[in-house]
Amino acid sequence: MKKRVEVCLSPRDFDLYSEGFEIIVVIDVLRATSAICAGLANGVKSIIPVDSIEKALEYKNKGYLVGAERKGQVVEGFDFGNSPYSFMDPKFKDKEIVLTTTNGTKAIEISKYSGQVIIGSLVNLEALTSWLIKQNKNVLCLCSGWQDKFNLEDSICAGAIADILIFSGNFYSEEDSTICVKQLYKEAKKSPFAFLKASSHRRRLKKLNLNKDIKYCLTPNQLNVIPYLKKNELVSLNEEESLF
Amino acid sequence: MKKRVEVCLSPRDFDLYSEGFEIIVVIDVLRATSAICAGLANGVKSIIPVDSIEKALEYKNKGYLVGAERKGQVVEGFDFGNSPYSFMDPKFKDKEIVLTTTNGTKAIEISKYSGQVIIGSLVNLEALTSWLIKQNKNVLCLCSGWQDKFNLEDSICAGAIADILIFSGNFYSEEDSTICVKQLYKEAKKSPFAFLKASSHRRRLKKLNLNKDIKYCLTPNQLNVIPYLKKNELVSLNEEESLF
Repeated sequence: MKKRVEVCLSPRDFDLYSEGFEIIVVIDVLRATSAICAGLANGVKSIIPVDSIEKALEYKNKGYLVGAERKGQVVEGFDFGNSPYSFMDPKFKDKEIVLTTTNGTKAIEISKYSGQVIIGSLVNLEALTSWLIKQNKNVLCLCSGWQDKFNLEDSICAGAIADILIFSGNFYSEEDSTICVKQLYKEAKKSPFAFLKASSHRRRLKKLNLNKDIKYCLTPNQLNVIPYLKKNELVSLNEEESLF
Repeated sequence: MKKRVEVCLSPRDFDLYSEGFEIIVVIDVLRATSAICAGLANGVKSIIPVDSIEKALEYKNKGYLVGAERKGQVVEGFDFGNSPYSFMDPKFKDKEIVLTTTNGTKAIEISKYSGQVIIGSLVNLEALTSWLIKQNKNVLCLCSGWQDKFNLEDSICAGAIADILIFSGNFYSEEDSTICVKQLYKEAKKSPFAFLKASSHRRRLKKLNLNKDIKYCLTPNQLNVIPYLKKNELVSLNEEESLF
């Protein structure tokens, strides 16, 4: 029997969509989930996502390396934000690090009670979808959005995942939100950069001189990594490991 | 200076988008706002939208003709639901009638404190957009959705309104939600029926044998009517009348 793949457009809608999925793919393309993929692919041991500055500070006081981002910028007093390039720093290798971001870590927090959290982004799209197709489980893609609003880049990534899963023949979808993002992806894949030129968050980051980050985050299929939530830490799935 | 047009994808997101708009266009293509247009274009004097069955019953006990729809069906004990054809009944001519529906009347209720409520649908698309272009006001399109979820038909109608307004040269938009629905409309206008074939609400109504209603509601530019909220009643705007 076919499994279901659906898309929830923002964390605020999660309760409307969350029932009946074994896997929740959390997506925050610009930049949290891209940075998490970059970190784990580059030897970071684990990333502890926390949803508030307060919790992040507690870890910092215990001596952890802690990243904190709000509204696209590193929060004062913290070591780094959510730039994927920070996560590739050799000093992070084999370390347990902590991260809080505006949208992505909040989305992880709300979804962890509903199913197995997996981290998705354009950078690990191919690895992720190949793995999802083999699992034979119902998959919900949760777009982190921007402060609870719909955003284009997460929706396009979710549309790509849904499209690839349905194309495999093993999945179906029913929701209008899923039809919508598949359509966006169909249009965007011709030229993702051109399509996203007008996106509100890309404009926001461009103002902050983050063009190098944007380019990294919007380049698909660079990393063969599947980060997943194991208790309260994000770690990289080994090839032989089975989650179910 | 250009005015702004944006789109809010569901009533649940209204607080995220509602600030700074003089006009709120409430859209519930299948079927509330199409039925309201049909009624007022066919001589109904006014339609009082109410957001609960209880309020609707109070009016019924006072002797009003009252329509009530929940989940696509007429609520037991009421005179009619939200089929546009009910509203064309000659017995409704010159009458004040009352209506409560699953999504549309709720969207009217939440938006009436933020700006002038105008009723939009595909059936009055051309009349509505011509009028909006002349007003020189900021316009927010509010999609009624389906029980707070995103839906395709309202999004496509909102995308059409945004696209036509921006194409006039008098409007701009900034939100990702607006880019998204403009893209959906661009795809859907090639063949609205084919595009909406898979939509969840169309499937829902088809099961209830409402194909005739669906066809009516998805046929653009049939009615030269602009319903607006005047105190607590929806009435048809006269050509000479100015709301601002």
